[in-house]
Amino acid sequence: MIKKISLIGLGLIASSIAKKLVLNNANVNIVGYDNLEYVRKIVDKFGIMEVHDKLIDAVEDSDLTILCVPVGSMGTVVSEISSYLKDGSILSDVGSVKKAVIDSVMPSVPSGVTFVPAHPLAGTEESGPSSGFSELFANRWCIITPIKDTPMEKIKIVRNFWEKLGSNVAEMTPEHHDLVLAVTSHAPHLIAYTMVGVADDLANVTNSEVINFSAAGFRDFTRIAASDPTMWRDVFLNNKDAALEILGRFSEELFALNRAIRQGDGDFLFDYFTRTRAIRRGIIEAGQDTKEPNFGR
Amino acid sequence: MIKKISLIGLGLIASSIAKKLVLNNANVNIVGYDNLEYVRKIVDKFGIMEVHDKLIDAVEDSDLTILCVPVGSMGTVVSEISSYLKDGSILSDVGSVKKAVIDSVMPSVPSGVTFVPAHPLAGTEESGPSSGFSELFANRWCIITPIKDTPMEKIKIVRNFWEKLGSNVAEMTPEHHDLVLAVTSHAPHLIAYTMVGVADDLANVTNSEVINFSAAGFRDFTRIAASDPTMWRDVFLNNKDAALEILGRFSEELFALNRAIRQGDGDFLFDYFTRTRAIRRGIIEAGQDTKEPNFGR
Repeated sequence: MIKKISLIGLGLIASSIAKKLVLNNANVNIVGYDNLEYVRKIVDKFGIMEVHDKLIDAVEDSDLTILCVPVGSMGTVVSEISSYLKDGSILSDVGSVKKAVIDSVMPSVPSGVTFVPAHPLAGTEESGPSSGFSELFANRWCIITPIKDTPMEKIKIVRNFWEKLGSNVAEMTPEHHDLVLAVTSHAPHLIAYTMVGVADDLANVTNSEVINFSAAGFRDFTRIAASDPTMWRDVFLNNKDAALEILGRFSEELFALNRAIRQGDGDFLFDYFTRTRAIRRGIIEAGQDTKEPNFGR
Repeated sequence: MIKKISLIGLGLIASSIAKKLVLNNANVNIVGYDNLEYVRKIVDKFGIMEVHDKLIDAVEDSDLTILCVPVGSMGTVVSEISSYLKDGSILSDVGSVKKAVIDSVMPSVPSGVTFVPAHPLAGTEESGPSSGFSELFANRWCIITPIKDTPMEKIKIVRNFWEKLGSNVAEMTPEHHDLVLAVTSHAPHLIAYTMVGVADDLANVTNSEVINFSAAGFRDFTRIAASDPTMWRDVFLNNKDAALEILGRFSEELFALNRAIRQGDGDFLFDYFTRTRAIRRGIIEAGQDTKEPNFGR
């Protein structure tokens, strides 16, 4: 059914998709494009796809075109390729934000092409094509957020595509996706960036002290805060409302805990610190993290 | 020099100390006490120390007594054992907070006994004696915060003790320790607890959604927020000023980032997210975390 796949933007995600397709011996022609020459050269050397240096050449005759660029660039990319997309083909994406992507992409999508937005919850703190690996999506979730009236068979093709890459697939509305991800991803990233920023900026604690004594908890924040800046800038610019809603809730809770510390309310703190343990157990049971303890806190 | 060591409070830290001493074939008599019977039974079965069910029996004739109870209980413990501590012996601790511990312990320390406060930056999100392991302290830091006029040779004994357990040892004032740890440990823990609390408490995002989609960043917070509630309650009650100072700075920064998101200030966000990467590199170079990427963000 899918004989040719186009990957637009050849970073961690696109390179992992291609590596897994090759490993699967998928009977499919993979083509790719990136606007950066050195990225194209790296991917070309991998020998896992046909790399083009012109965007429109990379989508010609493709059955499935996947946008793997930062979410802030997706609208522009689609406006450039729209008239070259094959009639009857599927356009999809891997953006961490769904509503803003749909809003920016849909006006350029031709009537013969179906846009099926998707978001693989996969990645590491590394970025670029060399960080990609075939098992990136194994046992990870991919969320599809279908637009109203999308034919079931088109959704099924995208679902099937991600399942073959090793993912579990869930479906929800774009709005709900953006709220769920604001909680499980966007707010945690912003908070981690903030904490690392605070530590970097203190006058009476040196950076070498922060670094040497980081294993006591801070370390785990720096891992998240090492993620790709362009990607995360675009996430916050494009999921503003949900991110601000969760961050508002976060500030409220933080103030309550601040007050409990100031007032010496040990019972409040103990109860709070106890109930958060249950979610951790759930995550381990769901296979989304290992039970193996993390050293050095 | 040290022929007998007493460990008071037989959780993760004490059990790891004993296991490493046994592994080292240290020529030393290890005795321990815990106020909970089931904990005493577990440790007794390990066969790594002589377990007592009376506190005062556990410190008799000891050359080095180490307090491994939550910091809020250290003052009480010392007031009970003070008249049984051997003349010329050393009293130490492993508390995550130093100034409040010194303030609560010192009034009960007899003149013939030297209190050398210490804090091994080691632990996992697990607690209890069964979570202990001999290599817990390997390549981790232990911070000694000597009290004014402490004889050098007493500090050297404690330093030597931790080095033999595998630690790197640093010295600083209790006040500076408390500020450094507020940044690298206490604030990150409170923030992680807060984020997990927010997620647990949302009406429109279910806990199963939070759990399934946690790999996108939230997961790393739950690991920290699964730490021992009693220990962390005591940390915040006993390092109030430094914790509130850092949390105040954190709120300020968070507000600045909130405003940048609301105003759509992409440059501010990009610059912020870029400079935090340098600290991560420093931590990996200092051997305080591995470079190996963490899946599924």
